Amino acid sequence: MKRPLILVTNDDGITAPGLQELIAIMKELGDVVVVAPDSPQSGMGHAITINSILHVHEVKMEGVKAYSTSGTPADCVKLAVNEILDRRPDLCVSGINHGSNASINIIYSGTMSAAMEAGIEDIPAIGFSLCDYSWDADFVASRNYVRQITSEAIKNGIPKGVVLNVNIPNVKEEEIEGIRVCRQAKANWKETFDKRTNPLGQEYYWLTGNFTLMDQGEDTDEWALANNFVSVVPAQYDLTAHHSIQHINSWDL
Amino acid sequence: MKRPLILVTNDDGITAPGLQELIAIMKELGDVVVVAPDSPQSGMGHAITINSILHVHEVKMEGVKAYSTSGTPADCVKLAVNEILDRRPDLCVSGINHGSNASINIIYSGTMSAAMEAGIEDIPAIGFSLCDYSWDADFVASRNYVRQITSEAIKNGIPKGVVLNVNIPNVKEEEIEGIRVCRQAKANWKETFDKRTNPLGQEYYWLTGNFTLMDQGEDTDEWALANNFVSVVPAQYDLTAHHSIQHINSWDL
Repeated sequence: MKRPLILVTNDDGITAPGLQELIAIMKELGDVVVVAPDSPQSGMGHAITINSILHVHEVKMEGVKAYSTSGTPADCVKLAVNEILDRRPDLCVSGINHGSNASINIIYSGTMSAAMEAGIEDIPAIGFSLCDYSWDADFVASRNYVRQITSEAIKNGIPKGVVLNVNIPNVKEEEIEGIRVCRQAKANWKETFDKRTNPLGQEYYWLTGNFTLMDQGEDTDEWALANNFVSVVPAQYDLTAHHSIQHINSWDL
Repeated sequence: MKRPLILVTNDDGITAPGLQELIAIMKELGDVVVVAPDSPQSGMGHAITINSILHVHEVKMEGVKAYSTSGTPADCVKLAVNEILDRRPDLCVSGINHGSNASINIIYSGTMSAAMEAGIEDIPAIGFSLCDYSWDADFVASRNYVRQITSEAIKNGIPKGVVLNVNIPNVKEEEIEGIRVCRQAKANWKETFDKRTNPLGQEYYWLTGNFTLMDQGEDTDEWALANNFVSVVPAQYDLTAHHSIQHINSWDL
């Protein structure tokens, strides 16, 4: 069987340790091309660059072709598929993100927006995140799970219209209990804005917040992670709330 | 009954004509506060500002309190709810966007990300878009539909976890056939990158693309708009593809 062509990207940027981990694992599974942002893009959601130009630079990286771009994670996938690669990738993986993209974080996630963009282009895609925000996070426990989930996705195929959101708990490898397929937990961030004054006397704000889980279900990604399981949420970009079409049809419209 | 407090925002920025149209309609229905980006933010998806500071400035606007921010549309909602407003809004409306946010465009849409952010904070929310990208678009045909849909949303309530994505066809008022509650059509953008060389001899790209509809359904937003109906898609931020959990559970995980 021909080795699959695997596009690797992320949102923490081309220099992130989590990207290097993902590249190392993917090199075992296929031919790898890396197209990643030249600077960190966390919190970029599904932003694309339409009012500005994009730069692409080839980057030296051992054993793989690699490119950095001035764009967002979604831009990276668009550039890779339509401009950089000479054939369609068989798989796109994004990450390993430094920090959780479980529950509502998927909405704000550059990591998952890259995977979503690949999905929209009909390329099977997986986003991987480790629940540790630090730059020197320890990815050792992630390796076997990233490899196993990716291998199974290559073997079985990911259903059309679906992208996998994988989160790995921040515990030692021997403490991980296994893998759970989950739904996205109901949660949000309670923001507080840290109001400060600059040296010119002008006010400005920093966004801060506390994560608030509003879901006691044992079938959620947050439950899985809190109980030391790797969570796999099949996510979709058809945002239609099909169940409420009937209700809204009862309005006087 | 007390007049509802309505938060108005957008992604085309505080100076956009579509914002002024939306404000004028909302002033008939409630007390209005405007919090909008100080510059256009189209294509920002659900980006939030976590690595930079935010500025907020009060702006003079007749009959309403108005603020511009240096943030994204999602930032505007967070700032409004947590810092600027002295009570929770009863409704958040975003738009009227200059250009379609139907089908897959919802994913890239700053307009809808603001509405989604309000929804995540449990505030009923609607995004409005007119299918005309020009700055001097004619919003006359939009007025009655925006007013009617908003009034019905206030009267009936929007189901929890659901945000409305309303798109208005770019035709004369007398040509509009009515309102259709729809699902999001399957579509994507086929990108082409316009490769150019700057005065220093360096290459750069502009993102361009062609919209590609891959859905023949007559229950979609794209069908409604092509047939001169106003489309209303109930959208959700629970991205779980519940229907594929069983399939992925059959993998060797």
